[in-house]
Amino acid sequence: MKMANNDSEQYKLGMIGLGTMGRNLLLNMADKGFSVTGYDKDRKMISKLEEEGKTHNLEGFDNIEDFINSLKTPRTLILLVPAGPIVDSVIAELKPLLSKGDIIIDSGNSHFTDTNRRVDELEKDGLHFFGMGISGGEEGARFGPSMMPGGDKEAYNVVKDVFEAVAAKVGNDPCVTYIGPGASGHFVKMVHNGIEYAIMELIAEVYGILKNGLGYSNQQIYDTFKKWNEGRLQSFLLEITAEIFLFKDTETQNDLLDQIKDEAKSKGTGKWTSEVSMELQLPIPTINEAVSNRDLSKFKKLRVSLEEAFGKKDNKIDVTVDDLENAFYFSMISAYAQGMHLLVQASKEYQYDLKLQEIAKIWRGGCIIRAKFLEDIYQSYEKNNSLEHLFGDSGIQDIIKSTLGGTRKTISACLNSGLGIPAFASTLTYFDTITTARMPSNLIQAQRDFFGAHTFERIDKDGVFHADWNKLS
Amino acid sequence: MKMANNDSEQYKLGMIGLGTMGRNLLLNMADKGFSVTGYDKDRKMISKLEEEGKTHNLEGFDNIEDFINSLKTPRTLILLVPAGPIVDSVIAELKPLLSKGDIIIDSGNSHFTDTNRRVDELEKDGLHFFGMGISGGEEGARFGPSMMPGGDKEAYNVVKDVFEAVAAKVGNDPCVTYIGPGASGHFVKMVHNGIEYAIMELIAEVYGILKNGLGYSNQQIYDTFKKWNEGRLQSFLLEITAEIFLFKDTETQNDLLDQIKDEAKSKGTGKWTSEVSMELQLPIPTINEAVSNRDLSKFKKLRVSLEEAFGKKDNKIDVTVDDLENAFYFSMISAYAQGMHLLVQASKEYQYDLKLQEIAKIWRGGCIIRAKFLEDIYQSYEKNNSLEHLFGDSGIQDIIKSTLGGTRKTISACLNSGLGIPAFASTLTYFDTITTARMPSNLIQAQRDFFGAHTFERIDKDGVFHADWNKLS
Repeated sequence: MKMANNDSEQYKLGMIGLGTMGRNLLLNMADKGFSVTGYDKDRKMISKLEEEGKTHNLEGFDNIEDFINSLKTPRTLILLVPAGPIVDSVIAELKPLLSKGDIIIDSGNSHFTDTNRRVDELEKDGLHFFGMGISGGEEGARFGPSMMPGGDKEAYNVVKDVFEAVAAKVGNDPCVTYIGPGASGHFVKMVHNGIEYAIMELIAEVYGILKNGLGYSNQQIYDTFKKWNEGRLQSFLLEITAEIFLFKDTETQNDLLDQIKDEAKSKGTGKWTSEVSMELQLPIPTINEAVSNRDLSKFKKLRVSLEEAFGKKDNKIDVTVDDLENAFYFSMISAYAQGMHLLVQASKEYQYDLKLQEIAKIWRGGCIIRAKFLEDIYQSYEKNNSLEHLFGDSGIQDIIKSTLGGTRKTISACLNSGLGIPAFASTLTYFDTITTARMPSNLIQAQRDFFGAHTFERIDKDGVFHADWNKLS
Repeated sequence: MKMANNDSEQYKLGMIGLGTMGRNLLLNMADKGFSVTGYDKDRKMISKLEEEGKTHNLEGFDNIEDFINSLKTPRTLILLVPAGPIVDSVIAELKPLLSKGDIIIDSGNSHFTDTNRRVDELEKDGLHFFGMGISGGEEGARFGPSMMPGGDKEAYNVVKDVFEAVAAKVGNDPCVTYIGPGASGHFVKMVHNGIEYAIMELIAEVYGILKNGLGYSNQQIYDTFKKWNEGRLQSFLLEITAEIFLFKDTETQNDLLDQIKDEAKSKGTGKWTSEVSMELQLPIPTINEAVSNRDLSKFKKLRVSLEEAFGKKDNKIDVTVDDLENAFYFSMISAYAQGMHLLVQASKEYQYDLKLQEIAKIWRGGCIIRAKFLEDIYQSYEKNNSLEHLFGDSGIQDIIKSTLGGTRKTISACLNSGLGIPAFASTLTYFDTITTARMPSNLIQAQRDFFGAHTFERIDKDGVFHADWNKLS
């Protein structure tokens, strides 16, 4: 253990929480030559850090006062502890030890409303607090994540060099940028995760279609994903998915995937995205379906008994793998478009002043949703930074038009054959609705006015109206 | 104005808030011979009450102390004021005037978490507070609503006779029953409204299909709905919808419906249902789509510009009106099933001990979602009150099997032709997923374990596992 308080060797930055993510990020910083240290209550975590970081003489503390005293002022602390009440208890422990001007960066998946609250609370004590989303999983933290810091810009400038050094790079561009004020960093990370839920669900549905609709073996599914990943569909999630299909279970010699339970768990960020979108009244149906379908998967017993009651479906469909590739590309675009639209709305509502081109830019590398298509998204917003919706970009429109035939064919065939594809179907119904100038929603307003006198607006004049609908009956 | 404090003529019950709903409910009570009175700050509201209630000599107060003193003890007060902070401020105004044992019944659309909080707060003062959902709109309040009271059962028994007298009747059964403890009354009303959103959206989508897919005129759509409403689809919402298509605009002589803006508003109860379902991890995708699609309808400018960019679709489809009738019946069942499933889950989670057969029973009359099909739902839960999901009932299974052909044909045709039918599509993808014993969700668990070491479970043994997926690459 390092002894603290020798001014000449004080550290630039300290990490609190040396689990896999915190440890890996710290090792990443040490790799880049920064003088950093870490704290964890658990000695075992410190030993792990010191073992993995021995080429850098990286050492850690289990005494919080020594740890705090080992840092240069203003002190910069990164929290990588589980989101929720633990963040508050760590902050409470830190507060008496810190001085005005110190910076606390919460890098966990905190709910953005918690981050708002903490910014306000700590501002009173003269402390800078900001929330930073980090994406990339364990590998990303270790070798280059995508980072979404939001909050006090002055505080950000103190650590900017560290973050730019450790972030993933696309060409020379680091996958980190100042996102905006308040809790915008955590907000953007939350939406990132919502998109992640949608893409993962879409890939799972493609798997279902290939397996049950086209009768593909795992090897053939591997070949398909592998090939797709060499083209316009290239993405981190598709890449790892392909590999999953080759992985053997050492015990049964079966493909491991087939031994895994079909009940999907979640940690809540997808659900938060859906809840916030409901509050902001900004539709993201595909993310909603992805969240709902993970929930649905957990009703295993019910599903088994209902399959028995209704009979196992013959899911065979007559579509080509190219049709399906088109459908997946289309649906992926629709899912990203919904997420970006939510960012546009949140930016207005919360005055985040988000730069969508910058966000797309830093998502091109390091993060879980990185994909070749993010370059298209980046270019769209770079060309027009006030673009309201991705479907409004002419380049995206060309792609959509070219994929729409295969998409309609695939999705309608699935619905005809009983393949459960809720996310897929929602990407298309979303598109068809948002490209409809005159929706049938006038009827909903008429109904509401009929039974509840909720009034309606007219197309031919301003104002609010009520009709005496009952006079007919 | 009535002078108070003559013991012999003290009132059994007092209404606070004499807007349309409160006034109508009070008139309904007076019709049934109960000695009741009302309070409103606004003299105009009192005049309206006294005018409309003159055959009963119904009088009201604009002085809250006189009003409170005019009531028999324990006093029974019904609040019909806008949900939210107004309820709290009315309660704060009332509290110093009330005595232990008095009963406050909040009959607005309060969020059930607010009701929980108020129950706790008022219990400390020895006051009974309970939340009661009322459905039926203005007409229902006046001539017989469906009522969902939840909370203190003793307090309920004090007013039971009034509620049973004023509620709608199906045969001899009043459409009111004690729902359960805590905020269960408001919870059940919220889910009622979620189902209402779903059915309204489904009807709007049918309208879109009839108009744009089959080229029907408003008169033909009226004829179709009218005919449907004579059969198994009979429901309050379908009945009023049919009438809407006949209603002429006195100014333009057009059908009024065509003059109404296609931007659907909402008051929040649908959104709450979706949010709570996300928290309870209980999928209700069709209610989610109904909420999302109202939100989407408000992006009028965007929709107009996107239709221009992508071209107006030729929505014509080759399905019969009988196929569509089957599809609508199927989708309606799916929507009710989702709502009932949410009640089952909430009952467990919040220990409401809900009786689903009783809830279905009181929804058969008076409320906005009353429908012939609710008799089927009632019978299903009456037969088996521990039924987990409506799809598990053999009678419902028979209906579903008989409608599935037309449903698949209609929905896949719509998706092929570009008709925006998000709610419809979700009812089918929900069915297809929940009747699938083995979902492709195992892949999601593999992905989560790959990039985030989130672990997975196996089908062949208990425990939690992690694989070193990266070793392949």
